[in-house]
Amino acid sequence: METIQITDVSPRDGLQNQAIPVGTDAKLGLIERLAAAGVRSVEVTSFVSPRAVPQMADAADLLPRVTARLPGVRASVLVPNLKGLERASAAGAQEVAVVLSATETMNRKNINMGLTQATDVSAQTLQAARERGLRTRAYVAVAFDCPFEGETPLDTVVALAQRMYAAGADEVVIADTIGAASPGMVKQRLQALAQVVPVAQLAVHLHDTRGMGVANAWAALEAGVRRFDASAGAIGGCPFAPGAAGNLATEDLVLMAERSGMRTGIDVYRLLDAIDFAQDALQRPLGGRCIAWLRRQAQTHARAGVSVPD
Amino acid sequence: METIQITDVSPRDGLQNQAIPVGTDAKLGLIERLAAAGVRSVEVTSFVSPRAVPQMADAADLLPRVTARLPGVRASVLVPNLKGLERASAAGAQEVAVVLSATETMNRKNINMGLTQATDVSAQTLQAARERGLRTRAYVAVAFDCPFEGETPLDTVVALAQRMYAAGADEVVIADTIGAASPGMVKQRLQALAQVVPVAQLAVHLHDTRGMGVANAWAALEAGVRRFDASAGAIGGCPFAPGAAGNLATEDLVLMAERSGMRTGIDVYRLLDAIDFAQDALQRPLGGRCIAWLRRQAQTHARAGVSVPD
Repeated sequence: METIQITDVSPRDGLQNQAIPVGTDAKLGLIERLAAAGVRSVEVTSFVSPRAVPQMADAADLLPRVTARLPGVRASVLVPNLKGLERASAAGAQEVAVVLSATETMNRKNINMGLTQATDVSAQTLQAARERGLRTRAYVAVAFDCPFEGETPLDTVVALAQRMYAAGADEVVIADTIGAASPGMVKQRLQALAQVVPVAQLAVHLHDTRGMGVANAWAALEAGVRRFDASAGAIGGCPFAPGAAGNLATEDLVLMAERSGMRTGIDVYRLLDAIDFAQDALQRPLGGRCIAWLRRQAQTHARAGVSVPD
Repeated sequence: METIQITDVSPRDGLQNQAIPVGTDAKLGLIERLAAAGVRSVEVTSFVSPRAVPQMADAADLLPRVTARLPGVRASVLVPNLKGLERASAAGAQEVAVVLSATETMNRKNINMGLTQATDVSAQTLQAARERGLRTRAYVAVAFDCPFEGETPLDTVVALAQRMYAAGADEVVIADTIGAASPGMVKQRLQALAQVVPVAQLAVHLHDTRGMGVANAWAALEAGVRRFDASAGAIGGCPFAPGAAGNLATEDLVLMAERSGMRTGIDVYRLLDAIDFAQDALQRPLGGRCIAWLRRQAQTHARAGVSVPD
């Protein structure tokens, strides 16, 4: 049976957007529950400026606690540049990720650099991380549509992915940052990207804004991609539009992949513990597209005294 | 550009499950709004026993009003047997559909016949409809999982589809009645079915119980299927689990297909009028997985004074 690898990004991409601050203990509690459900790769936090993203200000406290508590889990952290890499490295990071947006405007809005400079900074950071022996991921963000520039030229996305791969990225993560992709677009773009980056080193990061997240994941699977980002409970996106703009939910991806004959290593029922925990922390209902069905199933199994459901 | 054909089943599969009865005028109002949005095929009603399905008791009143008002719309109606065919024919039906469940238990629970008898009745009804010169559709229901028997054997589904095609079905509709399919299963089953029924005459009918409806539709498109059932606003399924167990939403399918480069002929923004109308009639919020995004988009376009959004 084929295996796919899911990086749960709820502690980072999920929590950085929330109105309610989540403390370090609660973040650790969430990550422990993800690990208990079988998640083996987590995007833990981001070593960005605490002024820019106050929700991630505890990065240097959180990361060592995660790696000490959960040695079997890959703990990935975002680093925006060499300074971020220094901080992450000092906190014991073994895996770092850079984020490069594929359009001029998105980079300017996000990090106040143009595309050329942002590309150089990402490449430089990747190279420095490799020299330290760290595992590396490189996001190519707004790889489908940009909120400011419309459809991102495929040529640009391909060139940036190639550049990040050449700079030493172990994984190049193609990100549909605003959830604008369709399965037809995913198919077309991944076919082109697989010409410049080995498909085994491509990953996709999807948002479910238009209800196509699961379909896009299937299109990526059919294109040969086996590495995915997802977020337990679909945490992420805009907290004022529940269920509408979050990340692709880990539970939705696990359910779809397992039922399509692939192994994820994640127990979707135990994932409910992580989702419930995050709900308590964020004080609002969470969950992907399957959540109502999943909760009914879990209740049925519990009533029947079944401990490991099918 | 490739075209797909969508049969909107909200007036039948949608409304037959609702707690609140919907009058004939309101049904006509819904169908008119679907047509105004560009829907060219509608499953209007069902000529079943009014005692069994009281929501469809007005079939003989509704159908002639629809065909008189909307001559450009294919109006399909369900008929359970020769008696239903007689009634539908007397009401002017030009297109009828039979429903054959693929398991013994489902047929017994649904129509109090075994599989063999149900198959014979469906074949007989199809043949009689063809002799009258009517267009015909044949559903093979519970074609993935059966709520009573678990996974339906693929061999059985293939044999029944072949039998319905041989009996004269213009379209054989493979139905995931309880929303249990995954895209991997859709791919596998449709590949097998396309060996016995020309893929141009295969259709799929999906429910979105587990959040995989759109992904399953994409898998069907990739298998070459170009005919789909869907229900505006995801009306259907259980009214006590909103968003969890309804039909694949027409708006979700249109959005996915159009954004993947296919033409549906349906204006997803005008579809909102039909959904709003149905919401008023059913007194509860409706909508597929994209509905929050779609309503925000519609508002943005309205504010910008754009009449035909992209």
